Amino acid sequence: MQELFDRHRALLDAAVAACASREYFSAFDESPSPRVYGEEAAGAGRAAYEAWLGTEFPLTTPGADGTVATERSPYGFDLGVRYPRAADVGPLLEAARAGMHAWRLAGPDGRAGVCLEILARLHARIFELANAVQHTSGQAFVMAFQAGGAHALDRALEAIAYAWTEMTRTPETVVWEKPGRGEPLRMEKTFTVMPRGVALVVGCNTFPTWNSWPGLFASLVTGNAVVVKPHPAAVLPLAITVQVCQEVLAEAGFDPNLVVLAAEEDGDKLAATLARRPEVRIIDFTGGNAFGEWLETHAPQAVVFTEKAGVNTVIVDSTADFAGMCQNLAFSFSLYSGQMCTAPQNVFLPAAGIETDDGHKSAAEVAAGIGAALDRLLGDDARAVELLGGIVAPAIVDRLERAGRGDVLVPSREVPHPSYPDATVRTPTLLRLTSDDADTYSTECFGPVAYLIETADTDESIALFGLTVERHGAMTASVYSTSDKVLGQVREAALEAGVALSENLHGAVFVNQSAAFSDFHGTGANPAANATYTDGAYVASRFRVVQSRRHV
Amino acid sequence: MQELFDRHRALLDAAVAACASREYFSAFDESPSPRVYGEEAAGAGRAAYEAWLGTEFPLTTPGADGTVATERSPYGFDLGVRYPRAADVGPLLEAARAGMHAWRLAGPDGRAGVCLEILARLHARIFELANAVQHTSGQAFVMAFQAGGAHALDRALEAIAYAWTEMTRTPETVVWEKPGRGEPLRMEKTFTVMPRGVALVVGCNTFPTWNSWPGLFASLVTGNAVVVKPHPAAVLPLAITVQVCQEVLAEAGFDPNLVVLAAEEDGDKLAATLARRPEVRIIDFTGGNAFGEWLETHAPQAVVFTEKAGVNTVIVDSTADFAGMCQNLAFSFSLYSGQMCTAPQNVFLPAAGIETDDGHKSAAEVAAGIGAALDRLLGDDARAVELLGGIVAPAIVDRLERAGRGDVLVPSREVPHPSYPDATVRTPTLLRLTSDDADTYSTECFGPVAYLIETADTDESIALFGLTVERHGAMTASVYSTSDKVLGQVREAALEAGVALSENLHGAVFVNQSAAFSDFHGTGANPAANATYTDGAYVASRFRVVQSRRHV
Repeated sequence: MQELFDRHRALLDAAVAACASREYFSAFDESPSPRVYGEEAAGAGRAAYEAWLGTEFPLTTPGADGTVATERSPYGFDLGVRYPRAADVGPLLEAARAGMHAWRLAGPDGRAGVCLEILARLHARIFELANAVQHTSGQAFVMAFQAGGAHALDRALEAIAYAWTEMTRTPETVVWEKPGRGEPLRMEKTFTVMPRGVALVVGCNTFPTWNSWPGLFASLVTGNAVVVKPHPAAVLPLAITVQVCQEVLAEAGFDPNLVVLAAEEDGDKLAATLARRPEVRIIDFTGGNAFGEWLETHAPQAVVFTEKAGVNTVIVDSTADFAGMCQNLAFSFSLYSGQMCTAPQNVFLPAAGIETDDGHKSAAEVAAGIGAALDRLLGDDARAVELLGGIVAPAIVDRLERAGRGDVLVPSREVPHPSYPDATVRTPTLLRLTSDDADTYSTECFGPVAYLIETADTDESIALFGLTVERHGAMTASVYSTSDKVLGQVREAALEAGVALSENLHGAVFVNQSAAFSDFHGTGANPAANATYTDGAYVASRFRVVQSRRHV
Repeated sequence: MQELFDRHRALLDAAVAACASREYFSAFDESPSPRVYGEEAAGAGRAAYEAWLGTEFPLTTPGADGTVATERSPYGFDLGVRYPRAADVGPLLEAARAGMHAWRLAGPDGRAGVCLEILARLHARIFELANAVQHTSGQAFVMAFQAGGAHALDRALEAIAYAWTEMTRTPETVVWEKPGRGEPLRMEKTFTVMPRGVALVVGCNTFPTWNSWPGLFASLVTGNAVVVKPHPAAVLPLAITVQVCQEVLAEAGFDPNLVVLAAEEDGDKLAATLARRPEVRIIDFTGGNAFGEWLETHAPQAVVFTEKAGVNTVIVDSTADFAGMCQNLAFSFSLYSGQMCTAPQNVFLPAAGIETDDGHKSAAEVAAGIGAALDRLLGDDARAVELLGGIVAPAIVDRLERAGRGDVLVPSREVPHPSYPDATVRTPTLLRLTSDDADTYSTECFGPVAYLIETADTDESIALFGLTVERHGAMTASVYSTSDKVLGQVREAALEAGVALSENLHGAVFVNQSAAFSDFHGTGANPAANATYTDGAYVASRFRVVQSRRHV
């Protein structure tokens, strides 16, 4: 174990330093280019992924009963991978707990070494993981490689770095010496990091690795056992994850069941069953508001970290780069068909239009500018599918069709996929609303639907932004304005509403993307999430320090 | 504000360093000696305290209706101080929130400066506070001065140091530069510490300052407003606290209502009303298990920190210093008549007795040894009352009388107080139980009652210790053994049960006492408390970081 820690120590130190400085840092190259990963990597990874299709995944889940095969690619075919169906959660939790004593004894450095080795092994399978993420989430390949592979690894490393910093800020032992009239009082004190218990990670369909790894590794490195409950439609990326965890744990002499997969049939309600078990003391959840809020109130024995949904807002006041703004927004709407918890939905702008470097633009002209930018971005089908990816669930197509009955500024288009004829691919639609349509814009319409909402003026835009975020939450917000006064007002409104703000984005930075080690993902300060990737609060309560003391 | 921060910067730095090293540190002298505090201090402080008696305390509580006078000294007289009776909590919370914007703008350094100045002003009133603590809690004067004054100030400083460290670990601004093929991407990012909302501090009767100040200052320094809800029997120490907070806040240009007193008539259930208000986002509670657990489950909108009760255990296996052990235990039972959440209650020892430096001792001889030590410690009434203090509530006398019907090894004695004829003072009683009497020893008998519990052997003692702590919680545990093997077993059992362990204490270190900056108070790892004074988890979720970013 010391050997693993030593091997990865420089990486850990660099990650710890980056968390503190918030400067640019990345440990895992986001480019799937052969120049980075070698000529063989892409093909071998794809073959490894394909070899799983239609087979029984070689994992054992204690207490399982039979298997489930619940995954269908948004590109139009069943994966047919069979996983053990978790059934009796008593033996499952017992098996997870069995190895905790030895895992605790490994200490913060020992556990960090093992977790960092797991990341290295996951990195070695990044192309396989990218294919698995692509064909469960529907993300296009490059995005699956980046968000589901390299960036997810960075976020996992970040969580490990924060947790290790938190565990090691208290020394393992100290001599305490209190001066007195005669001899000083001298006590030797020992401080031991103790895990809370079993951690439950509830994965989501759209980002099975990116949204699960931070919690998984934050809990594991702090000494807890982890039960991974994937979304039934996105099991494979997490099955591979669990396989790698078990492999490294076993090689290092630990019980592989410290990380177990708990797959289910859709409708088994396994997460709810697990969440109320007394053994489960930590829960990380990504998904819808209803179940997230249920977890926050119905699992008081556990520390609960949730990332739910909100209504992400753009305030358009004015711009010195109209074309750049339209391109940037078009890209943000298009990336993974808006199926991101960070994708913008509500664009507030004055009904009278805005001032730009290209002259005054009416609201209709702004819509036309975004529409033209979407056309340029998505006009070529082969290029379009690499940005849009596939629609992850039929409910999203239904929502899109219902939206089409509104006041459509930019219609959605079905895009034929050149390689997957049965893929479901759609371009985003842009609908016109006014500030009176709060019933519509106050709820998340997950998927490729955005609203251009006409307001009386920017003051009203800011007021509605604050109101909707405070009430309904948001993961992101952005603003376009050439006025320092307006930027200051929006900054203040974003602080009060508790949402991260991006200002005047153009070029290759998008509001839906956050950079590990620098951007916090979510704030925990509005209803969309009660936690952040990653800060001190995300890791500090995953373990406790228990001390002993004696005279010396 | 910068001036206040600069004035106290050296102290803050020393406290931050001590939190990290866990070495001995104290910023506030615990000796009430005139050599330390000057010839005038004790008399002036007592006079200041006495001047409050029978008067209306000059604090305004928004939404109040009339006054309450609910305090009676355990030394036998009514304090007769009248406080505004909090009634309409809407205006109260509105008034508390009103100043939060300006308070947030002060930033971590500005708020730390103000909070450290408050500590300096409280320190200047330490004798007045000590008298107020004595005549509400019943603590003897020196203990009230130390635990209620100097040590409470140290714990408050510790909480401020942890919170300031947590707030400042993220820079306020950074330039992020991502290398690319051409020009790097450059973004300026701003990180702002945002408070959660209104914090509620629910005080207790026995340690009105020591148990309230860590939460109060941790919440205040992180930008929150604080509503202080004292125990009806111990208002004055917290009224003085609020007065000092308001005075310093106002002088520094902030809204004094950022800290407000919410006094109540016993039975008003004000804490429950406040705890469920959406504005209340942090709760710090010290008190009984029933209401503590209610808070943990019924205030999901808030982060809830509780210190409740448990059954503190001593395992007696063997000793190389029989006299020292008996003296140490006798002191721990006697200090403040065992009315401490950290006082030992259950002493497990083998029925066949133990080996000591003074030969084999039967269980009865161990009881006799403790009894003799109690006699030496408490034989002189004038000295005894300075250790025992007064019994804080009639219910404790009732419990003591009921306990007297058991198998009494050492009886309790009424001690007449030389200065306060109506004081209620009792020496501790020691009762004989066996391991079968779990119904008795599994619940806390708060006050001067301890059990000597005969077990089959030390293995059974350890097993029962683990069981009772895991189920019923504990704030402290201790062990006496000359065997490294036994010490190792007990250490392991204490880690698994999640309770701090003291080993072979003798001399002037007692299991009921924890030293700020070195000993964590509570672990958060067993049912007696879900939090610790003070660690990262105690401060990290009291605020959120909200960021903005822009191209540069």
